[in-house]
Amino acid sequence: MGESVIYIGQKPVMNYVLAAGKKLAEPGASILVQARGKCISKAVDVALITLDRSKDSVKLGGISISTEVLPGPDGAPQNISSIKIALNRP
Amino acid sequence: MGESVIYIGQKPVMNYVLAAGKKLAEPGASILVQARGKCISKAVDVALITLDRSKDSVKLGGISISTEVLPGPDGAPQNISSIKIALNRP
Repeated sequence: MGESVIYIGQKPVMNYVLAAGKKLAEPGASILVQARGKCISKAVDVALITLDRSKDSVKLGGISISTEVLPGPDGAPQNISSIKIALNRP
Repeated sequence: MGESVIYIGQKPVMNYVLAAGKKLAEPGASILVQARGKCISKAVDVALITLDRSKDSVKLGGISISTEVLPGPDGAPQNISSIKIALNRP
């Protein structure tokens, strides 16, 4: 099964947790929880709640952080931090 | 040299970046950037800006996330996400 990406935005945490749980329902499934800027904290919440709810059937893979350059509100390039958290069900 | 911990709180990002840079001035130094809850995003900013400013002399070590149980505003235990980001100067 391919790796699905869950982008964390402005919705409530549990929306993403439910989506992650659904995508991780089958053995062999893996997802990438991605977020930028202020949503990074929420991405960590989503990953940890998903792990906790899975009762050990889902494992934490790698966590990577990087800087992305995006156009800011005034059009000038702006650095923004991003995170990617891999979760998989062996 | 022992590993120093920088706890990320309510101060501006650059305060922590300067503190991190100071602690990582000597080869062999290592620090742990730690944050909880909403400050997790700021911890990622601090780590990435420190790496960028070091011009490759500082390396990203491991990143770990975990759930901590703290007393909430009403005294009841509350789960809160936390992050630890290791940075070192080889």
